[in-house]
Amino acid sequence: MLNKEIRFASRPAGMPTLDNFKIVDAEVQELKDGEVSVRTLYISVDPYLRGRMREGRSYVPPFEVGQVIVSGLVGEVVESRAPEFAPGDVVTGMLGWRLYNVAKAPELRKVDSRVAPITTALGVLGVPGLSAYFGLLDIGKPKEGETVVVSGAAGAVGMTACQIAKIKGCRAVGIAGSDEKNQYLTAELGVDAAINYKGPEMRQALKDACPKGVDVYFDNVGGEISDAVLPLINQGARIVLCGQISLYNLDKPDVGPRPQPALLVNRASMQGFIITDYAARFAEGVMNLGQWLGAGKLKYAETVVEGFENTPNAFIGLFSGENLGKQIVKVA
Amino acid sequence: MLNKEIRFASRPAGMPTLDNFKIVDAEVQELKDGEVSVRTLYISVDPYLRGRMREGRSYVPPFEVGQVIVSGLVGEVVESRAPEFAPGDVVTGMLGWRLYNVAKAPELRKVDSRVAPITTALGVLGVPGLSAYFGLLDIGKPKEGETVVVSGAAGAVGMTACQIAKIKGCRAVGIAGSDEKNQYLTAELGVDAAINYKGPEMRQALKDACPKGVDVYFDNVGGEISDAVLPLINQGARIVLCGQISLYNLDKPDVGPRPQPALLVNRASMQGFIITDYAARFAEGVMNLGQWLGAGKLKYAETVVEGFENTPNAFIGLFSGENLGKQIVKVA
Repeated sequence: MLNKEIRFASRPAGMPTLDNFKIVDAEVQELKDGEVSVRTLYISVDPYLRGRMREGRSYVPPFEVGQVIVSGLVGEVVESRAPEFAPGDVVTGMLGWRLYNVAKAPELRKVDSRVAPITTALGVLGVPGLSAYFGLLDIGKPKEGETVVVSGAAGAVGMTACQIAKIKGCRAVGIAGSDEKNQYLTAELGVDAAINYKGPEMRQALKDACPKGVDVYFDNVGGEISDAVLPLINQGARIVLCGQISLYNLDKPDVGPRPQPALLVNRASMQGFIITDYAARFAEGVMNLGQWLGAGKLKYAETVVEGFENTPNAFIGLFSGENLGKQIVKVA
Repeated sequence: MLNKEIRFASRPAGMPTLDNFKIVDAEVQELKDGEVSVRTLYISVDPYLRGRMREGRSYVPPFEVGQVIVSGLVGEVVESRAPEFAPGDVVTGMLGWRLYNVAKAPELRKVDSRVAPITTALGVLGVPGLSAYFGLLDIGKPKEGETVVVSGAAGAVGMTACQIAKIKGCRAVGIAGSDEKNQYLTAELGVDAAINYKGPEMRQALKDACPKGVDVYFDNVGGEISDAVLPLINQGARIVLCGQISLYNLDKPDVGPRPQPALLVNRASMQGFIITDYAARFAEGVMNLGQWLGAGKLKYAETVVEGFENTPNAFIGLFSGENLGKQIVKVA
């Protein structure tokens, strides 16, 4: 049985390129007791993986050059030596970019295809959805009637955050990179206003969209977009740092207006988080997200690229904003 | 009876100068029922007053040109038409820079000279001490064995924060602007290490002083000092924004390395606060600070300038770091 894997070939300097990845033939490993063989169906590509391609301290250890890239996958069990799983089960876990992975049973979680399409395990019911859920509700603490601004609003995390803000009775304002994306946010998802950050009057448009100021800023992007949001924050505002995609490909630290004075005079807070800190509460998050999904209060979008070998390209495309919603690769 | 007052004559451009103030003769107002006449003994000059000299939104309304400057004062009641106060009582409150103020009784609080010298009502047992107490304990949440870094460590707030960190079993590292100040911090106050931010190897010295990284950063200064602290923060670090004195006299927003990436990868937080939010708990703060003071665990320093007319100069001197501890003006 032929296996293939995608290895981390070299550390990117700036924007990642195809040269940073290498697709090679590989063996299918033999199963030991407690292990499961999984055929990859879908691969999730995520902006945070760029952080792991950088050397040095971060919240997850960096990828070593030569190792197989690891991210969220959905697959089908083809062989099992663990009692919890049987061939045909659909599972998800953090696995290698391979056609076939061998995983220990505790690394996997079953995906119930009757609840929602199985790809949602990588999106709205997976890490992106949970990041929006816990980041917005636990750190952002939006109250009814407040204004919530979301950057990267057309991504998987951002569009979920926008909709949770609406569910909680807030005014939701999204910032994204094209008029098409913004049309989707307002027309399909019910976001109150959506700003194109590439637009000429971006700052004025944002101000107009937030007549009562900004109480919660859920930030996936950082950089100049945050520079535009910060002057609008209200007393006691909460800034949730979920990602800083605009900065991931910079070779040296970016420079901008210091946010401290605005935080100080508004008694505001800015806080980073990592979704694994909420692991003990994932069931709560999936349950609520699933209920909203079932009730039609929460929608999602996916951008699907076909073919295992296109995984690096799909990842690179994240940084030019090619995706609407969750970017996934359909493998089989 | 001759009265004098110091008015806000013009908004400073950059560093305040004597031209921004005007000392004029004034009437002593007549007392109405419920009012008290107070002869000024000591005036507190504070960095945050610079913020009120700027136009535009802040947490306190700006001073209007022509009005009398208001700050913390300690005085003696000379006449009272309020039952709570009698001539001879020593009181404190937010009052005008005048030789004599007329105040409503609820604006004043009695100062007990048997507990501590009455000037402490403007320092370690007043707003600066309470800012250190609530900012460090409520927002910084230091745990035993953690490392607490304090900028502006030789000021009234900073030296109190350093000592509370020690009381809570932390490693306290102060940053101040002269070797003399740092000698005081380590030799007199028991601070574990003190860094001169004007020193040539400041970043290396700070790193050496924090071998286990930084868990809490109590920031009074901002700017390049914060740029040096940020790369050292640990996972879950808390940054308390108490002041940003290095930025107060800048005409346009200062630019520097963005702190968001460090906050994100370290799941760290940065939060501004204003001491009046803790008004309901002032009694708790004063009680604990007073007990530590009585037990010799907490010390304070004062820099006293004599003469009412020197108040503007004493204020201006704050920005060149002339003070060790609380800067006050002795009026009578």
